[in-house]
Amino acid sequence: MADSTGALVTIDRVHAARAVAAELGIDVLVLTPGSDLRYLCGYHAHAMERLTALVVPRSGDPLLVVPRLEAPMVDAGPAGALGLEVRAWDETDDPFALLATEVTARLGSAPTRVAVGARTWAEHALGVHRALPGSTLELATPVVDRLRMVKTAPEVEELAAAGAAIDRVHARMGEWLRVGRTEAEIGADVAAAILAEGHVGVDFTIVGSGPNGASPHHELSGRVVQAGDLVVVDIGGETATGYRSDCTRTYAVGGEPGPDVAEWYAVLQDAQEAAVAAVRPGVTAEQVDAVARDRITAAGWGEHFIHRTGHGIGLDTHEAPYLVAGNDLPLEAGMAFSVEPGIYLAGRCGARIEDIVVCTDEGVRTLNEGPRGLVVLPG
Amino acid sequence: MADSTGALVTIDRVHAARAVAAELGIDVLVLTPGSDLRYLCGYHAHAMERLTALVVPRSGDPLLVVPRLEAPMVDAGPAGALGLEVRAWDETDDPFALLATEVTARLGSAPTRVAVGARTWAEHALGVHRALPGSTLELATPVVDRLRMVKTAPEVEELAAAGAAIDRVHARMGEWLRVGRTEAEIGADVAAAILAEGHVGVDFTIVGSGPNGASPHHELSGRVVQAGDLVVVDIGGETATGYRSDCTRTYAVGGEPGPDVAEWYAVLQDAQEAAVAAVRPGVTAEQVDAVARDRITAAGWGEHFIHRTGHGIGLDTHEAPYLVAGNDLPLEAGMAFSVEPGIYLAGRCGARIEDIVVCTDEGVRTLNEGPRGLVVLPG
Repeated sequence: MADSTGALVTIDRVHAARAVAAELGIDVLVLTPGSDLRYLCGYHAHAMERLTALVVPRSGDPLLVVPRLEAPMVDAGPAGALGLEVRAWDETDDPFALLATEVTARLGSAPTRVAVGARTWAEHALGVHRALPGSTLELATPVVDRLRMVKTAPEVEELAAAGAAIDRVHARMGEWLRVGRTEAEIGADVAAAILAEGHVGVDFTIVGSGPNGASPHHELSGRVVQAGDLVVVDIGGETATGYRSDCTRTYAVGGEPGPDVAEWYAVLQDAQEAAVAAVRPGVTAEQVDAVARDRITAAGWGEHFIHRTGHGIGLDTHEAPYLVAGNDLPLEAGMAFSVEPGIYLAGRCGARIEDIVVCTDEGVRTLNEGPRGLVVLPG
Repeated sequence: MADSTGALVTIDRVHAARAVAAELGIDVLVLTPGSDLRYLCGYHAHAMERLTALVVPRSGDPLLVVPRLEAPMVDAGPAGALGLEVRAWDETDDPFALLATEVTARLGSAPTRVAVGARTWAEHALGVHRALPGSTLELATPVVDRLRMVKTAPEVEELAAAGAAIDRVHARMGEWLRVGRTEAEIGADVAAAILAEGHVGVDFTIVGSGPNGASPHHELSGRVVQAGDLVVVDIGGETATGYRSDCTRTYAVGGEPGPDVAEWYAVLQDAQEAAVAAVRPGVTAEQVDAVARDRITAAGWGEHFIHRTGHGIGLDTHEAPYLVAGNDLPLEAGMAFSVEPGIYLAGRCGARIEDIVVCTDEGVRTLNEGPRGLVVLPG
């Protein structure tokens, strides 16, 4: 697959994963197509029923197990450039048996603890487990998240470029978001603009108008935008290097909303800005959530803020760290995540404000600009 | 998510899945976002870290476990129309514990055999398993494949519409596939045409020119098409109801190829047509593979046909049944799959011919038309 993640990847990532796995007592990591594989070795493969896996034993060389018909692609791509050993399997081979043999040979004995990617398909996870009887199966999350959560400076620049790209789409919203048009029509225009403004893929286009704005993951419908609607627009895409954008703004179409809306929207904006300002190394993920939640609750709207405050972002739109009660992970410089409280009034309307931010040594860097107040469009 | 699969779905599918699970001794099915969920209850959900699952115990009512913030969407969609019980969980709840409690209550005791979807993420599969200690984890494939493999008449019409749509794209290939253009440029035009001609999403665009045609899963590169190139074009997309297209034609750009190419291409075309003609109820999947392979091997090109002959297609591009040596599944009327032998000459060129076909009571129905011979474009 055409891909430019490779320029950001060195073999150091695989070595770091092996070191963390060894530290945690994991005998072998098995990572299949998706963002883990792309992160660790630059290989952006289709997830498919045929097994492709980066296999990292705690001792011995890592290897890539791939279908024979894809081996030429792998050799010619970023993973080939890293010098990873490629073991191709034929259509009638058992790739799990091949994997088990290779791992056992490298370790000198069968592995005890086998860790697979969080998003590895069950058919692959259970296939690996069946080929290594006596092993226990667990997630590679503690290894992979530790590496992926903390972005390098070049990764932060990729996220900043993604943020600027989605900001350009929001800046043009008045071209499409008008009274009399359906959410679906608006969404199609927004999707085209996401591609035109620096993305290679559209991840999601949420246009929640009027009462649909009270359903946080509502996407698009045939509802026609009315004068006086609040409209939640939450959009994101994938850039050429695989890094993601994700930004929400709330629009008031056809003039200023009433004073009741202005009052609770001000609470929301204050909560979002306070939560962003609270980000710095050592503050925990749940503390940032609490900053936003406490302000909204104190103003009497707590029952209407029905989701966590944010999620990490990188090669996946949602990844660690999650800003949610119960997550006492201390933030570190380089962690990138959304801060996106919302207030939802069932049957009436909703509002959400979302920025992607990065924790820095100095505190916080915001990767989305553009007004956070209600954006009034003429309609 | 906007979706029209729902019109094809009735609660009978969930009941049929429960009956097959009971017959196989499986205590509970747990199916997460993806084609299994969409097939069984019409819910086309984003795969996400938050657990969404259709839970089908062998006794008692099925239920949908969903994040609270998505419950309004579910209620308003096809799954809601089926009358499925929805159990929403809050951001700080443990959805696996909720699932375990519900299943155990319905069964009257903890389940012994728990089956998850083949493409369920490991984090969800292992989360369910951890919440049900004492159970064994297996794949729901034997249940779900048995249902999904055999298409109903309306499903066949959806695949036929998808086939006609991708045929229209191939019919226009001369607009884009020209000497002097890169594979990437051609692929971008083809992708736009896939959307313009009746799809809502592009699944893949393989444009393998000259030596790149010898790499079956090559996608797009910066290589410029030369006069005299063979070009393998394998393309597919997703229609509004989720059914997929997938069709390969091989083009000769800039005039007729030499007699050497014509000779082995004739072998390939004969093999593809013979394999299609061999399809009828009772013939096994591997027998169809053998028909194509034997002809290519008898002509001396067997070592250059490096992949299986085909794969099932429906709500996934690749699904059961697979036409591969070792699969002795007898074909049944309603099974839909690709027949796509290829010949690949490393470093030089390749060719593949692919049609989607449906096994019928009478034999076979082909869902792709258009010439199967080398399509000569002026260049």
